[in-house]
Amino acid sequence: AARLRDLAGPTIFSEMTALAQAAGAVNLGQGFPDGDGPAALLEAAHAAIDQGLNQYPPATGLPVLRKAIAARRAADHGVEYDPETEVVVTAGATEAIAAALIGLCEPGDEVVVFDPLYDSYGACLAMAEVRRVPVLLEYDGTRFSFDPDALRAAVGPRTRLILLNTPHNPSGKVFDARELALIAELCVEHDLIAVVDEVYEYLVYDGLRHLTPAALPGMRERTLSISSAGKTFSATGWKVGWACGPAPLVTAVRTVKQYLTFGTGTPFQAAVAHGLTACMDWVEELRAGLESRRDLLVAGLRTGGITTYPSSATYFLQMDARSFGTGDGDALCRELVRSAGVVAIPSVALYDDKKAGRHLVRLAFCKDEELLAGAAGRLAAQA
Amino acid sequence: AARLRDLAGPTIFSEMTALAQAAGAVNLGQGFPDGDGPAALLEAAHAAIDQGLNQYPPATGLPVLRKAIAARRAADHGVEYDPETEVVVTAGATEAIAAALIGLCEPGDEVVVFDPLYDSYGACLAMAEVRRVPVLLEYDGTRFSFDPDALRAAVGPRTRLILLNTPHNPSGKVFDARELALIAELCVEHDLIAVVDEVYEYLVYDGLRHLTPAALPGMRERTLSISSAGKTFSATGWKVGWACGPAPLVTAVRTVKQYLTFGTGTPFQAAVAHGLTACMDWVEELRAGLESRRDLLVAGLRTGGITTYPSSATYFLQMDARSFGTGDGDALCRELVRSAGVVAIPSVALYDDKKAGRHLVRLAFCKDEELLAGAAGRLAAQA
Ligand SMILES: CSCCC(=O)C(=O)O
Ligand SMILES: CSCCC(=O)C(=O)O
Repeated sequence: AARLRDLAGPTIFSEMTALAQAAGAVNLGQGFPDGDGPAALLEAAHAAIDQGLNQYPPATGLPVLRKAIAARRAADHGVEYDPETEVVVTAGATEAIAAALIGLCEPGDEVVVFDPLYDSYGACLAMAEVRRVPVLLEYDGTRFSFDPDALRAAVGPRTRLILLNTPHNPSGKVFDARELALIAELCVEHDLIAVVDEVYEYLVYDGLRHLTPAALPGMRERTLSISSAGKTFSATGWKVGWACGPAPLVTAVRTVKQYLTFGTGTPFQAAVAHGLTACMDWVEELRAGLESRRDLLVAGLRTGGITTYPSSATYFLQMDARSFGTGDGDALCRELVRSAGVVAIPSVALYDDKKAGRHLVRLAFCKDEELLAGAAGRLAAQA
Repeated sequence: AARLRDLAGPTIFSEMTALAQAAGAVNLGQGFPDGDGPAALLEAAHAAIDQGLNQYPPATGLPVLRKAIAARRAADHGVEYDPETEVVVTAGATEAIAAALIGLCEPGDEVVVFDPLYDSYGACLAMAEVRRVPVLLEYDGTRFSFDPDALRAAVGPRTRLILLNTPHNPSGKVFDARELALIAELCVEHDLIAVVDEVYEYLVYDGLRHLTPAALPGMRERTLSISSAGKTFSATGWKVGWACGPAPLVTAVRTVKQYLTFGTGTPFQAAVAHGLTACMDWVEELRAGLESRRDLLVAGLRTGGITTYPSSATYFLQMDARSFGTGDGDALCRELVRSAGVVAIPSVALYDDKKAGRHLVRLAFCKDEELLAGAAGRLAAQA
């Protein structure tokens, strides 16, 4: 179909993972950990299978999971949701985003996005025949931030919603209180919805804390918070995600997702309910472990004089292709597969403004420490 | 969004299951079995979780599963597919259908459907802004069949594809060789695609056999065959489905689904690969057991003089509301929850032609025999 014209080909993540496998290279591309989630989570999945929880879940998700999600939002952010009408379980955050964009936007609407943006956002906006209006996240020497006036200017009469990802992939940026306040101000002033992808909510470093726009004045009633179990519990292959928000927004997601997939893996829903209730200490250990892996990767790259950009969250940090004598991050990534045995993601694939992203290369540090150290050493040797 | 206007509210299956739970009634509504799949399948899921297959699968699905799917199509129908480019794994057949319709149709296209049609078909056609052109399946005193001239007339210059479900839900009809030959003839003549939902492919009774249009002359290159593990292995909550067809059609599905969900439960993909290879004898036992449950349900309903319609496949058969003194199947279903403690599906919810479906009520017989016998007895007492 014509609306898919620009989407042909596998995703950048599939492409680079296939390259890694073909070349036997270390995969610092696609964001998935090489360790498993907590033993109690896996045990809960086994138990659910054995208890016969193998048939369709409710389209909205198992009640026990919806309750656990609402309890976490209340404990973490002081935002209360009714598990019956204000929480819906999806096939990962990816389906929640797809269903939200298809369900909330009319063809011809505009959606404000921060650039770079996760690949599925652009694809779903195209499927929904919605125009995206990018606001660039620029590195100012200390951090990635956006020009407040650029955000103000991006909002117009056709703007339906602001699509936000915090903590942010690929930059590792955690949107701060001042930035979120401006986003909230614009949403309230122009009666916009905020759709917020918060899948890295627990993977935050440097003493920072993830803030959800839903907790800001006037925002609970217009914010759809999306998250998932994949990153929180190192179970990216289980595909259990969710969306929380006021009933009209959650209903829009449910209305679409019930026809996209109907439901997602029943046994894993039960397991994730257990995880959200009983495994949050494990998540804190995961977080601390990732923080030290980030440091290890940064230190390794520095030995080769490679410029890295600060990341305070997620699985990822970015380095500068110019440290390798090229401004072309995409070409560099393809080169490094062979020369360093390392696969990375050319950030430009996630940029709307190709010039701004050209020299950036994303590395995942959610991997085994020895593997990471080795990869960093080989990258340093190439720089 | 406006395109969802007619889709508001939970699906008829969710609605009736909620009614069953609230009333403590026997759920012969939503199509899921109350027994689990083969022990070896559950064992394979446990093993996959323990082996650490808990991260993202390839967007196209685990290679071992794609190979097992291709091997089955070859063994069952003599149709060969390249597991690399002609098979894609999806989050159930539901996602395959959504991705196919979104990926293959332009807004304004027409799609020929057989009426009644599974609820997600209409919803996905609406999301894709495609017009559906229904061809009625009418009961001729022996079977549900369509008027060949009506099918011919339904195909026009804007027709993009024919969407077919065989074996057919809710009627239990198995499209026969003559009917499929006409469908194939029209597809070839008008250069149409056939999208075929074959999820009940192994649940066929009365010595009949499921035929796939893909096996007919000129059809392999224009047929997308969709199926899933849910019904075949009594694992409707695992959400492992797939689509097979020529590379351009499979690529369209992949292009969309990689942004709807990216992938579906990795451990269950590994388990289903094992199931398709090693558990087909179990499926034959399931099939035989379902055939005898159908007979048991029919016999029970007959004791009350209830008219039933012949079903030679699926989980379902239909009965006639007029046996209960009403032409309104929907009202009857709501009444029977209380009066008989049985939940059924008003077939009219799946009909485009509301008049044609008004008196039909769908009952699922994929349930425990005692439960079924009891429900049939209580229904018979109400007639
Ligand atoms: C679904 S594949 C992409 C995984 C991911 O979140 C990333 O690498 O950014
Ligand atoms: C996904 S809920 C509907 C299940 C089903 O196939 C049916 O009852 O027809």
